[in-house]
Amino acid sequence: MEVGEDFPRLPPGFRFHPSDEELIVHYLFNKVKLRSLPAEVIGEIELYKFDPWDLPSKALFGKDEWFFFTPRDRRYPNGSRPKRSAGSGFWKATGKDKSIIASSGVKNIIGLKKALVFFTGKPNKNKKTNWIMNEYRLPDLSSPSRQNGSMRVINFFPSNKFLTLHTNIMI
Amino acid sequence: MEVGEDFPRLPPGFRFHPSDEELIVHYLFNKVKLRSLPAEVIGEIELYKFDPWDLPSKALFGKDEWFFFTPRDRRYPNGSRPKRSAGSGFWKATGKDKSIIASSGVKNIIGLKKALVFFTGKPNKNKKTNWIMNEYRLPDLSSPSRQNGSMRVINFFPSNKFLTLHTNIMI
Repeated sequence: MEVGEDFPRLPPGFRFHPSDEELIVHYLFNKVKLRSLPAEVIGEIELYKFDPWDLPSKALFGKDEWFFFTPRDRRYPNGSRPKRSAGSGFWKATGKDKSIIASSGVKNIIGLKKALVFFTGKPNKNKKTNWIMNEYRLPDLSSPSRQNGSMRVINFFPSNKFLTLHTNIMI
Repeated sequence: MEVGEDFPRLPPGFRFHPSDEELIVHYLFNKVKLRSLPAEVIGEIELYKFDPWDLPSKALFGKDEWFFFTPRDRRYPNGSRPKRSAGSGFWKATGKDKSIIASSGVKNIIGLKKALVFFTGKPNKNKKTNWIMNEYRLPDLSSPSRQNGSMRVINFFPSNKFLTLHTNIMI
């Protein structure tokens, strides 16, 4: 189902614009725990099977920004390193993970966020694109659960469009 | 009425996060034309009577960012220059007006946006604060209407909080 930019039945100006904490606490955590979600706005997809430009049409909604749940693909069957190749290229992290801290109560780390850029081609011969992805995951537990480790929520966008949005907010 | 950060009855992650165009087309234009608005989310206030830190509790909702309709105050009874003094200080523009262009159809200028910072004290002896305001207005018409010229929509926020929000989005 594709319903365009606006979530159905919302007045103009209202949209799904979650904080990192909301995305972790209300969506990813419940998804991982197989609990019901507050709203059906994030589709599940095998993200690493596709090029980013083929993903927007697979999202439940979105225009400049899209959200997906995706299982993590492991690079090696028994290894913990994630597989980052996707479609005709690969996703590459742009920096360190950012910890997402609970804003109330005990200031625990409730999630981790990583920014990635999509490159076409192979690592030794590639071309950077303007497709950017934020990957949110639950913290690795002392006794890791395959389930926790494998399900991620993805927020991705073409950076040029996104910067336009950002300019709109800032100026 | 104060209803906290989230608009009533919205699932977590949904909020009023309008584009400049949505704010002009769906809210300010209809307000100026005395038409009904798509949602009652923007309260009307005499903005220049208050210090910015007294305004959040007067908004219909909001946490890091608040919206108001406000009439423009003229500096001189018959002049066109706006009055910028407010509460214990004054608002000062930080740059040129930004034109807001219609995204579809004829690419008309549908509105103007100005960023302002609040200073306490008097122009000759003042202290800059971290309160920032975006002022949206309809374009001046060839045959100006007092009504068009006088009603503005305001979006304001403490810049430190806002920059935190911005970081959440970008990283």
